[in-house]
Amino acid sequence: GAAAERKTTQLRRLLTSPELSFLMEAHNGLSARIVDEAGFEGVWASGLSISAQLGVRDCNEASWTQVLEVAEFMADASRAPVLLDADTGYGNFNNARRLVRKLEERGVAGCCIEDKCFPKTNSLLDGRPQPLADIEEFSLKIQACKEAQRDADFCVVARVEALIAGWGLAEALRRAEAYRAAGADALLVHSKRRDAAEIEAFMAEWRGQGPVVIVPTKYPSTPTQRFREMGVSAVIWANHNLRACVTAMQNTSQRIMREQSIAGVESEVASVQEVFRLQRDDELKAAEDRFLPKK
Amino acid sequence: GAAAERKTTQLRRLLTSPELSFLMEAHNGLSARIVDEAGFEGVWASGLSISAQLGVRDCNEASWTQVLEVAEFMADASRAPVLLDADTGYGNFNNARRLVRKLEERGVAGCCIEDKCFPKTNSLLDGRPQPLADIEEFSLKIQACKEAQRDADFCVVARVEALIAGWGLAEALRRAEAYRAAGADALLVHSKRRDAAEIEAFMAEWRGQGPVVIVPTKYPSTPTQRFREMGVSAVIWANHNLRACVTAMQNTSQRIMREQSIAGVESEVASVQEVFRLQRDDELKAAEDRFLPKK
Amino acid sequence: GAAAERKTTQLRRLLTSPELSFLMEAHNGLSARIVDEAGFEGVWASGLSISAQLGVRDCNEASWTQVLEVAEFMADASRAPVLLDADTGYGNFNNARRLVRKLEERGVAGCCIEDKCFPKTNSLLDGRPQPLADIEEFSLKIQACKEAQRDADFCVVARVEALIAGWGLAEALRRAEAYRAAGADALLVHSKRRDAAEIEAFMAEWRGQGPVVIVPTKYPSTPTQRFREMGVSAVIWANHNLRACVTAMQNTSQRIMREQSIAGVESEVASVQEVFRLQRDDELKAAEDRFLPKK
Amino acid sequence: GAAAERKTTQLRRLLTSPELSFLMEAHNGLSARIVDEAGFEGVWASGLSISAQLGVRDCNEASWTQVLEVAEFMADASRAPVLLDADTGYGNFNNARRLVRKLEERGVAGCCIEDKCFPKTNSLLDGRPQPLADIEEFSLKIQACKEAQRDADFCVVARVEALIAGWGLAEALRRAEAYRAAGADALLVHSKRRDAAEIEAFMAEWRGQGPVVIVPTKYPSTPTQRFREMGVSAVIWANHNLRACVTAMQNTSQRIMREQSIAGVESEVASVQEVFRLQRDDELKAAEDRFLPKK
Ligand SMILES: [Mg+2]
Ligand SMILES: [Mg+2]
Ligand SMILES: [Mg+2]
Ligand SMILES: [Mg+2]
Repeated sequence: GAAAERKTTQLRRLLTSPELSFLMEAHNGLSARIVDEAGFEGVWASGLSISAQLGVRDCNEASWTQVLEVAEFMADASRAPVLLDADTGYGNFNNARRLVRKLEERGVAGCCIEDKCFPKTNSLLDGRPQPLADIEEFSLKIQACKEAQRDADFCVVARVEALIAGWGLAEALRRAEAYRAAGADALLVHSKRRDAAEIEAFMAEWRGQGPVVIVPTKYPSTPTQRFREMGVSAVIWANHNLRACVTAMQNTSQRIMREQSIAGVESEVASVQEVFRLQRDDELKAAEDRFLPKK
Repeated sequence: GAAAERKTTQLRRLLTSPELSFLMEAHNGLSARIVDEAGFEGVWASGLSISAQLGVRDCNEASWTQVLEVAEFMADASRAPVLLDADTGYGNFNNARRLVRKLEERGVAGCCIEDKCFPKTNSLLDGRPQPLADIEEFSLKIQACKEAQRDADFCVVARVEALIAGWGLAEALRRAEAYRAAGADALLVHSKRRDAAEIEAFMAEWRGQGPVVIVPTKYPSTPTQRFREMGVSAVIWANHNLRACVTAMQNTSQRIMREQSIAGVESEVASVQEVFRLQRDDELKAAEDRFLPKK
Repeated sequence: GAAAERKTTQLRRLLTSPELSFLMEAHNGLSARIVDEAGFEGVWASGLSISAQLGVRDCNEASWTQVLEVAEFMADASRAPVLLDADTGYGNFNNARRLVRKLEERGVAGCCIEDKCFPKTNSLLDGRPQPLADIEEFSLKIQACKEAQRDADFCVVARVEALIAGWGLAEALRRAEAYRAAGADALLVHSKRRDAAEIEAFMAEWRGQGPVVIVPTKYPSTPTQRFREMGVSAVIWANHNLRACVTAMQNTSQRIMREQSIAGVESEVASVQEVFRLQRDDELKAAEDRFLPKK
Repeated sequence: GAAAERKTTQLRRLLTSPELSFLMEAHNGLSARIVDEAGFEGVWASGLSISAQLGVRDCNEASWTQVLEVAEFMADASRAPVLLDADTGYGNFNNARRLVRKLEERGVAGCCIEDKCFPKTNSLLDGRPQPLADIEEFSLKIQACKEAQRDADFCVVARVEALIAGWGLAEALRRAEAYRAAGADALLVHSKRRDAAEIEAFMAEWRGQGPVVIVPTKYPSTPTQRFREMGVSAVIWANHNLRACVTAMQNTSQRIMREQSIAGVESEVASVQEVFRLQRDDELKAAEDRFLPKK
């Protein structure tokens, strides 16, 4: 049969095709496999979700190699390509380009780097300053990443935080153009308005100069068809698996605590067999039959 | 105020007190914090759940230092003590005693070591051989762990797999006595029958020679009161948070895939603010106010 | 017998005692043990040497958790306390205070944090800008570290780079005073002049306001007695074990390459038995005798 | 220009070519680069040396992912291919084949797996039992590794410990044949006699059925020409860089301790500039000129 398409090529096509694509958040190997099985074209390895599952904050409390290891488990668990939310690239151009090499080795298909300063602050936190990186420095960082990659299809997405930081549309456009010129494979334009007005305005001015990715966490009720009409390339559903876990675990833990029994929750949670299936126990069983001596 | 009680001391009291105690499964920092907030006295760092969340199988595919790091994040995220499901101790006595030292350093309150062989096989997998460790070798492993610990209250729980392996009650009792004599702080007696008959029989013969922990994953409908009557010290609800996550993420991912929208799930998942709260953003905000210069 | 003194207490005494003390560089577990056996009171876990042995550059190419792991192996291998060269603390106050907690857990006795920006540049590299941190921000970082530590004797050394950066004596003194006031347990005053003139001038003005540590890599011929007279508390011999390894390995590898034989070098290198001794094989042998069953 | 040859292909050619080849030991990124610069065709990532530099013992005290990380730094630092001494594969066939995948990702060109039991014991330790793996189980482990690799040139070397364990020539040959039939790319035949008699006898019977690698640590004075005549494919100089470091650091540390000065050793150790050169500072300097904004 034909060789499987590389994950980097899959991610590149997802970003550059005329159709609107969807990436769903995951934060460990298990969630990546579930996203893959649900049929999504891509996996968003969310920085917020990864830090939250680890139990730390989304301001680079986990080291970049700890995040890298989570991303590796995700890439191993999913056939769909993983796009890592890599914050600022964890330092300057040199840290970012080193990351690119390490991601490629581990089968991660791309990374998204944002134009803020290390350590970053989560964009949705209220009342926090969101200092932006110097535009030239960040453009050169993108360029350094692009030169570092060895697989021509590895994707570097440049995330524009000008709207989050309150610097306005003109600055967002200026940065988007600079990052595109520096070699970014796509722009992620982030907004925390409760409607899509900023994104609408950006897309109207952008006029299809390159693929644009959006993250409608704060404007969930904008119809997806609207994003198609604007010319958005991909939508990231950025943290809903993590948030579903929080609710499910809080409910489950509280109920078991209260009832001093698992009998009540038993029918509401996946079976142990389903966990084994997700772990691909069938492949191991078959391998054991071949590679362990018959006693 | 008085110094906070050490987590090791909390775990020891939980195991040795006359009341029946409950440990709830967690598999990363987030779930550990949720278990803690739900009011449980202890956190069970399940080997099955940790491997499943990482996306690998429960047969030591993750290295012991990868598991150690997960356990560290859990200990950091929870006030309640963490008891690590440490499989076989990841090798011989020397690997196991090294693990004990590393767990102590990271604030993990105890570990449970099972009398199987490395690499282990999950006890609930059907159709797999479950070779048991040599009884003398395993007893010496427990003794080596106990001598290695520096905090007198660190707990080493010896897990008896004789019932799982089908070796019968007499062997289970023989092993339990040997491990107790070797210094185990408690015995974990595991059964995969769909009722508590094996546990009943064990407890009747055991006659309170030391704390006994059970894991009723396969016999969830036995009333908890029955465990009290038998003289069980602690019950582990071993994997229900992980299984709740599987169901919640499958439902959430499939629905978002189908609806091409997050609007539908928005009200069913925890808010982003709740994620920030669980990450203790309030502590960081207060610290930033003190430790960042006013611009 | 009496409990062994904590390593943190040893390091504190070394820094605060009236005698001149010496810390010798190490860069992995093996070198730390050799430094310890040579009789040094303290081990300097050099950032340059650690990065060099890993094969990367001294500009935070290795992640902070990779450095942490090296420091952990060093602390495990040495009875003498380890002082980690922690660059800038690997980010802002929050990264630095998190590091302090992790170092304490791993038995590292203290860390030295320098007033530069992340990612740092090695101070001895020619022709590189050496931007300094804001004095207030860095003072608050020191304060945050001091509040984070749980062991009262853990040491935070503040490294003053003003002389390296060419900002002059007055700025060095201003910073030293600010860091001392913020809680630093000692100041490390660095100079890359080829004589001790800058250090002399600093010490004359400093007038014993607190312990001062120096690193005479660039002024090796200044008599040590002169440092005593100036009132220096501790001298760090910062990279000589690493540099000795470079020469030894280059010579050994080249000779074996040339001679196509190890016969020639055999008498010039340590025996395999000496390697086993340094690995403490005797302790393992004794433990095996106790904890492995007699077959 | 032509694409560089893959390191796996280099290693395969080294093992299969008619000329006698040499691999020199390294144990971290720095030593790997020095071995490469000295002109060796291959780098032997020695398990003894890696454990010794970390400060632990050669009985799997370091986890397999800790060793993997050291091997990654080595592969990054060397143009010559790295062959990892992977002990037993760190468990059963499943652990070993997982290792192969991870090594491939990190650019390690091959691994050597020995037919002992986990945790292993160093072959040169006196007075230790050296239990051998079951021949069928180990053959299947080799087969599982070969099926797991994705790069056709990745090399799996099977190490025969029958001579070390005292089981004699016939057993060594029987095992060598079984492992070769299972797909091993080469055999490593180890002996701890103080002469090459066992190797001579083996080679005479083996009659060139496949590449043979030897490790003459215990018989250093056998002329290398003799190995050529026997038909050996490659010789591993297994631990001499590590041993050179031990001697160099002991001498350096003791002298600095005694002299309370670095003046004496200054001329005997590599310069700081040489350390910078080995860290490839020139590449970084050039990159900074391109990717950092001119201020
Ligand atoms: Mg993010
Ligand atoms: Mg388990
Ligand atoms: Mg340094
Ligand atoms: Mg070895």
